[in-house]
Amino acid sequence: MDEKIKQALIDIVGEDNYTDSLIDMVSYSYDASEYSQRPSCAVWVETAEHVSNILKLANREHIPVVPRGAGTGLTGTATPVRGGIVLDLSRMNKIIKISIEDRLAIVQPGVVYADLEKALAHYGFFFPPDPASGTVCTLGGNVATNAGGVKGAKYGTTRDYVLGLQVVLPDGRIMRTGSRTMKSVSGYDLTKLFVGSEGTLGVVTEIILKINPKTTAATTSMATFDNLEDAGRAVSQIMYSGIIPSVLEILGRDTIMAINQNTDLDLPEVDAILLAETDGYTTGETDFQMEKIMEVFKKNNAGEVKKAKSQEEASELWVARKSAYAVLSRIKTHVVLEDVTVPMAKIADLLKGIKAISKKHNIMIATYGHAGDGNLHPQFVYDGYDPEQVKSKGAASAELFQLTVDLGGTLTGEHGIGLQKAPFMTLEHDPAAMNVMRGIKRLLDPNNILNPGKMALDK
Amino acid sequence: MDEKIKQALIDIVGEDNYTDSLIDMVSYSYDASEYSQRPSCAVWVETAEHVSNILKLANREHIPVVPRGAGTGLTGTATPVRGGIVLDLSRMNKIIKISIEDRLAIVQPGVVYADLEKALAHYGFFFPPDPASGTVCTLGGNVATNAGGVKGAKYGTTRDYVLGLQVVLPDGRIMRTGSRTMKSVSGYDLTKLFVGSEGTLGVVTEIILKINPKTTAATTSMATFDNLEDAGRAVSQIMYSGIIPSVLEILGRDTIMAINQNTDLDLPEVDAILLAETDGYTTGETDFQMEKIMEVFKKNNAGEVKKAKSQEEASELWVARKSAYAVLSRIKTHVVLEDVTVPMAKIADLLKGIKAISKKHNIMIATYGHAGDGNLHPQFVYDGYDPEQVKSKGAASAELFQLTVDLGGTLTGEHGIGLQKAPFMTLEHDPAAMNVMRGIKRLLDPNNILNPGKMALDK
Repeated sequence: MDEKIKQALIDIVGEDNYTDSLIDMVSYSYDASEYSQRPSCAVWVETAEHVSNILKLANREHIPVVPRGAGTGLTGTATPVRGGIVLDLSRMNKIIKISIEDRLAIVQPGVVYADLEKALAHYGFFFPPDPASGTVCTLGGNVATNAGGVKGAKYGTTRDYVLGLQVVLPDGRIMRTGSRTMKSVSGYDLTKLFVGSEGTLGVVTEIILKINPKTTAATTSMATFDNLEDAGRAVSQIMYSGIIPSVLEILGRDTIMAINQNTDLDLPEVDAILLAETDGYTTGETDFQMEKIMEVFKKNNAGEVKKAKSQEEASELWVARKSAYAVLSRIKTHVVLEDVTVPMAKIADLLKGIKAISKKHNIMIATYGHAGDGNLHPQFVYDGYDPEQVKSKGAASAELFQLTVDLGGTLTGEHGIGLQKAPFMTLEHDPAAMNVMRGIKRLLDPNNILNPGKMALDK
Repeated sequence: MDEKIKQALIDIVGEDNYTDSLIDMVSYSYDASEYSQRPSCAVWVETAEHVSNILKLANREHIPVVPRGAGTGLTGTATPVRGGIVLDLSRMNKIIKISIEDRLAIVQPGVVYADLEKALAHYGFFFPPDPASGTVCTLGGNVATNAGGVKGAKYGTTRDYVLGLQVVLPDGRIMRTGSRTMKSVSGYDLTKLFVGSEGTLGVVTEIILKINPKTTAATTSMATFDNLEDAGRAVSQIMYSGIIPSVLEILGRDTIMAINQNTDLDLPEVDAILLAETDGYTTGETDFQMEKIMEVFKKNNAGEVKKAKSQEEASELWVARKSAYAVLSRIKTHVVLEDVTVPMAKIADLLKGIKAISKKHNIMIATYGHAGDGNLHPQFVYDGYDPEQVKSKGAASAELFQLTVDLGGTLTGEHGIGLQKAPFMTLEHDPAAMNVMRGIKRLLDPNNILNPGKMALDK
């Protein structure tokens, strides 16, 4: 890093909050994606004014700035592809306010998801998105990628809970969006524009979140299917039962096998397992809903249909589901977790298509995911040191994206575009939409300093 | 209208779909607000291509275009303040698709809310926002103003249900946003940018809506309060009970009196009545929730607390609530329905403030609204032919907006900004936010042809 710039950064954040040491630069070159590239330096910011002053400097000097939370993103959003400054927000980790009577929490972006969960649990409340990386990921990252999780079908994603933001714009101006109210239609919805914008439009320095009371009862069940199409049809037919399960997850055969090889859960080795949860305040209510769902399973040729008899039995099923990513990651040297989402009625077609793509390219693709909102996570398992397998993986991904879009779906349900899907943006979005997105980027960030190279916005 | 332009418009939509007759121009000069001004002509459009060709022409010739649904907006959004072309979308009224298995409906903007309700009821589904004007308002208008209703606290507003749009941009380009999936984080959230943008950024020609299954059980109760502060505190304390009521409405004394004078409902004449509904699939569930809410009512010094014994008794209470606007409208020559929204814990302060403003300016302000999400509707009742009362009304409104913002609230929960609140936008939004909104407007509509004069965007 240029000495003058380095000094200016140190003047802003202090010596202890600046680093350009090799070991830190290597650490900051990675996130949880397959990409990596080193920044020139990193700074830990502690206030919105820090962020503002850094962006003013970077904007004047045309230096790339990459905002970063915990670096758990799977698409390369926090990878500094053009070098520059990594803006580490993890020290802005205060829960500013929890106001149950107003049904909201106000937090800094570096607060870890699980820390907010803990604080809210005290009041019987929670913040529903529940990303799989919840124990480590930060709320700023959740906002940047519009993170979601297993409760998406019933409770939505991060976007549905962000009431307002404090954002530092690329030119250093500090802006407030939204409000502390449950609803507002005062002016354009700037809040939602920043949610999911992957740090390309501004740096979020404060978040106002709507929170939910926790329901106190739940019923869990599982159903096995010897046939992917039956499982897919069961998912879309649940809608006709008039019930929205609080969770509806699918595990494909490869995923089930990997779980069995790595745990003692002994799941039935079938083509697909569906796991469902219903929630409410009384077991009468949750059982009533589950009965309807189990009827749908049976009508669609489920083999075994089983209601969990106890909280322990239910927990075991969720442990199985939650272990999927980890157990699949052990099989070969590399994994890439995909995130395609289709209209629910197309889930069976997507599952069949994934099977065909896997066979054609001779690459393991183990599928699981949030069937209840059509969001599947096909996990590519391969040897990233073998150029042939890397090539196969690339070709298979491209076919998966094309298939998804052909089925009326979207490239990403909850992980974002980042670097990984930037080349595929135009598959999904028409020229006018691409043009408007790029126009908004240029409007707010004319020097393209904020997280450049992501989301296909630089064209 | 210039003869050449008139002919060009007729060439686009056909003779039957064009009018500049005096009677039509007078009709189109109004919406449900206090404003009116005549356009130069109106056209009924039938396709996105019609809209595209008209916008190309208008953009070339710099002619204002005001999109219009049913004209039920309360803030002047559909009033053609600078003349030009009214684009009447009411004939684009096809329900294109209802797909229960995908949990969505695809509609044209001119579909009346109630018509979609009817179509969905057949499947046991509904579109939750439920605006008070639902029997006549159009879904395009709902999207343009992000309409809400009595179920907002639990089910959100229109924004929460719009998955994707087809939008014609001011230069005539036809764009798709979002998708047919339950969730997506692919690129910027252009969909939500258009929701609530009041026809200033583009003309919506197709809407993809998420829909909900209808719950099958409900419990209704009412509680009376001799003291506004007790009622306000009860509302915010319900959150501590861990229950989100499906409806939680408030009626103030003036509203109660007006209802009693105009109906045979014979409501208790107290300072405030709260009406609550809980929903679910079993009465065990809805009663359980209601018990918790009624405890909160009692703890906060409610006078009478009564659970409706039958569906009829519950219906009567909702009829009372729904009659408020109409009965208050009969008292004097003019009414203006406000729409301020505050954090729930501030409801008591807002109610007290409204009482003080009413007294100070000697103007009747009858309050009711959606207590469950902090959205109150103070209804100004006055003689609009008396310049003194008009002046008082203006001064009282300005004080109400200032009070709302001082309480951390927003100018509008569900009606929008339009003309009515344009002068107050900067009370709520900081200079950076105003600048970004205006920048987005200029980016998409550089000639300011789409609904000019609204939302304080022309500066």
